[in-house]
Amino acid sequence: MFPKLPIRIAVLCLVAGAFAVTFFFHHPKAALAADSTAPAYTTNGELLPPTNYREWIYLTSGVDMSYSPKAPGMQSHSSFDNVFVNPAAYRSFLATGTWPDKTILVLEVREAKSKGSINQHGQFQGTQLMGFEVHVKDETQFPGKWAFFDFDSPDKNGTLIPQGAPCYSCHAAHAAVDTTFVQFYPTLLPIAEVKKTLSAAYLKDEAAAAQAK
Amino acid sequence: MFPKLPIRIAVLCLVAGAFAVTFFFHHPKAALAADSTAPAYTTNGELLPPTNYREWIYLTSGVDMSYSPKAPGMQSHSSFDNVFVNPAAYRSFLATGTWPDKTILVLEVREAKSKGSINQHGQFQGTQLMGFEVHVKDETQFPGKWAFFDFDSPDKNGTLIPQGAPCYSCHAAHAAVDTTFVQFYPTLLPIAEVKKTLSAAYLKDEAAAAQAK
Repeated sequence: MFPKLPIRIAVLCLVAGAFAVTFFFHHPKAALAADSTAPAYTTNGELLPPTNYREWIYLTSGVDMSYSPKAPGMQSHSSFDNVFVNPAAYRSFLATGTWPDKTILVLEVREAKSKGSINQHGQFQGTQLMGFEVHVKDETQFPGKWAFFDFDSPDKNGTLIPQGAPCYSCHAAHAAVDTTFVQFYPTLLPIAEVKKTLSAAYLKDEAAAAQAK
Repeated sequence: MFPKLPIRIAVLCLVAGAFAVTFFFHHPKAALAADSTAPAYTTNGELLPPTNYREWIYLTSGVDMSYSPKAPGMQSHSSFDNVFVNPAAYRSFLATGTWPDKTILVLEVREAKSKGSINQHGQFQGTQLMGFEVHVKDETQFPGKWAFFDFDSPDKNGTLIPQGAPCYSCHAAHAAVDTTFVQFYPTLLPIAEVKKTLSAAYLKDEAAAAQAK
């Protein structure tokens, strides 16, 4: 189970408003492991955990990313965000520049450490997990095709984040490809550019940023 | 080809002395892609590039890591280090706590950006590669079993770093498992602890650090 610390979920689920969304990890729930990379659910709509995600395709890491002005005190827990995707969806993206049905993106939040062993500067990833979230595309399951789930732990079931949450509206308004933040996935952004799959919303943001310079 | 920028190689190949080793990328060389995950060499001892390493197993990322006091001006190019390993070696490590023959560890150095799209704080990875290095275990090929290679680009052949370079002595003196910095690989360190494969040198470092607290 994760430590009872508030953390920011910065890469997949964005925070609209004055400060980042925080959550606490508590109450582990029984879970069955998903035995394939297709999303699987319990009868009450929880998502089974993608237990082998560390053997999936790595997309990127960020450190202390935030899409909104920082609230006082939010800097106290420095963390890395690591993003993984199931291999079938990755291969489809390479071919098409967008995500197929049954795509599963995993956000793993991990403590950032500066002191340890012989390291003297910068930051490295510690063994402590601080958060875990999944963004899944399942066209027949969700009205908006995609849904976010958060997890108390990577081996427990995930709880659906309701469609009205700011994650959804922000991803729709700013994400580069199909409501996903491909602008932060360095090996995929060039593919989306070539395949011309960048969203109108993202292109509008980029044009406005270029004009502001 | 990489930009002509000096960069630090912080995770795999360490820098002994007052400041981090720097190198420049230049003169692309012809290369054949390695078509499997076993290391393969040209007749003059260059290492063929592991072209599909982004589909290998991700181990960790660091940001601006350094094992030595920072020299003035070294902060100007912030970067992430991403480490990948071939899947067969990873599975062997899960079972044994150490690396088999033919292990290939890849260090990809990528620009760290702070401003871009809707990001306001922290850092994310950009599309620009700034360095590429491989640490390979090939017991019949190298007197010390392991060797480092640096690359002008991930699709060119790699040049052997001579065995007298500080990479080798520092890894021997401080790395947690079999001359590799498993202390910075958060999912593998607990396995090495359980399997009791941590090096005497690393345990000595840790004991000294604990005593100094």
